[in-house]
Amino acid sequence: MGKRIVIALGGNALGNTPYEQLSLVTETAKPIVDLIAQGNEVVIAHGNGPQVGMINLGLATAAEAKAIKSDMPFPECGAMSQGYIGYHLQNAIGNELAARGMAKDVATVVTQVLVEESDPAFQHPTKPVGAFYDRETADRIAAEKGYTMVEDAGRGYRQVVPSPKPVDVIEKNTVKALVGSGTVVITVGGGGIPVVRREGRLVGVPAVIDKDFASAKLAELLDADLLVILTAVEKVAVNFGKPDQRGLDALTPAEAREYIAQGQFAPGSMLPKVEAAVQFAESKPGRAALITLLEKAKDGIEGRTGTRISQ
Amino acid sequence: MGKRIVIALGGNALGNTPYEQLSLVTETAKPIVDLIAQGNEVVIAHGNGPQVGMINLGLATAAEAKAIKSDMPFPECGAMSQGYIGYHLQNAIGNELAARGMAKDVATVVTQVLVEESDPAFQHPTKPVGAFYDRETADRIAAEKGYTMVEDAGRGYRQVVPSPKPVDVIEKNTVKALVGSGTVVITVGGGGIPVVRREGRLVGVPAVIDKDFASAKLAELLDADLLVILTAVEKVAVNFGKPDQRGLDALTPAEAREYIAQGQFAPGSMLPKVEAAVQFAESKPGRAALITLLEKAKDGIEGRTGTRISQ
Repeated sequence: MGKRIVIALGGNALGNTPYEQLSLVTETAKPIVDLIAQGNEVVIAHGNGPQVGMINLGLATAAEAKAIKSDMPFPECGAMSQGYIGYHLQNAIGNELAARGMAKDVATVVTQVLVEESDPAFQHPTKPVGAFYDRETADRIAAEKGYTMVEDAGRGYRQVVPSPKPVDVIEKNTVKALVGSGTVVITVGGGGIPVVRREGRLVGVPAVIDKDFASAKLAELLDADLLVILTAVEKVAVNFGKPDQRGLDALTPAEAREYIAQGQFAPGSMLPKVEAAVQFAESKPGRAALITLLEKAKDGIEGRTGTRISQ
Repeated sequence: MGKRIVIALGGNALGNTPYEQLSLVTETAKPIVDLIAQGNEVVIAHGNGPQVGMINLGLATAAEAKAIKSDMPFPECGAMSQGYIGYHLQNAIGNELAARGMAKDVATVVTQVLVEESDPAFQHPTKPVGAFYDRETADRIAAEKGYTMVEDAGRGYRQVVPSPKPVDVIEKNTVKALVGSGTVVITVGGGGIPVVRREGRLVGVPAVIDKDFASAKLAELLDADLLVILTAVEKVAVNFGKPDQRGLDALTPAEAREYIAQGQFAPGSMLPKVEAAVQFAESKPGRAALITLLEKAKDGIEGRTGTRISQ
């Protein structure tokens, strides 16, 4: 009996150029299609850090050089990255399915994710994005566009955006309907295009939603059985990088919280993954999260490796 | 009784910057939602000429300046433009539906469109895209990337890409399922991401599929009743720009072909619209195409204006 599985792919695993990305997704597609071949319903979320940075920086550079008429606001850069990465993933997964004689549709849904303007993150933008500028240019851009610009590690000034928590996936009905009809869906790319509700209207805002939190929210909304957060290590470890480093096979939310309190997981790296896993595992009895390597996903789902977080 | 309607929006109607586009789509959404409010199933296709040009040129400029690691191939630029324009359209249409208290989902499907490598267009690339280069740089890029570069009107050298005919819409099942469940779908943006089939795999190719032909193909595949091609004039005219210019209310495919043979319609402008309209009108009895202004779409569908092409 198949499971409904949301897979969160890292943006860093997708390479630094379109040529690298197209080559990498061909490999990424294989373990994903393995899971589909086993009868699971698979929904794919992905990060977009390097990609949205490249798009934002590239178009800002071209706009400063007057080669194009405007820079590109951050929500629109996110939308572009969803088209770009989604196309490569749907193409590669579709090709892999076809190579195995499996008749299944694959679709990327451009996805907005609701955040709240009252989220405290909006008072403390922390994510640097896009180009480095000198002070004068940074001041001009801040005045022109209302961006928050901060000095970044002596390398110049950059825009910083907040990282609010996802509250809802606007296109959830569409994703649900497609998953229910057997389609492999790619959604909440880059954590989703962040939108707030103002007087009943959805308005894009410059922000970055953590893709692991967005994936956990998506998995809840889809009533998924399993959230698989892919990363660069086979198991979550405590005492990471120390002689007594120890990989974890299974964690309850309470145990995970204890390790979080001990500062075992790096902020911006393993910490949000564990937090997102806990959030999903706690959202309803029977739900579990798995953190592992892409190539170990199948083994992990079968209980042979990775770190499983469940009640 | 509602109709199933495919609307082809022009990329030129979307403005030149993200700020213009976001403002324009707010207006575009109103007549579209009027049609939905009347009980029609509406599917939206759109052009992307200025937008994909901006993305391609911007990222190529930034790559030449070494601000980013790579330029962006043309199919990927098209995918980005689908995310970018699709997000704005789905956001604006969603907001307009919400403002009218209409509970309806809106979704952008990233869409690949199949073309044939044997299409004669591949022997004669005609569509200039992206940046102008000097001869030396153009020769280097041609050698590095295999692009066809040609001299363009004394302004330098540019990549030219072919404009092959659409043969199939890869994500048609997804679009059909969503339209059938009442979702407003945005698809085949920019004519679709052009792909060819090589040894069973779909491979993106640098090409531009005419969005009116892609819309006609989509309308056929969805068994639509009506294809509405939006343009900058209320009616197709003969003797355009002359003292005896005459707007046309209705045309049979045979009449349209006669006017085409007379050279009445400008290549790259009204000609592909009329050709796409004829193709759809001829594809099955009962199908009709309408060419008119966006703000006249409702009147046109009710038979009061525009140019209707039907058997």
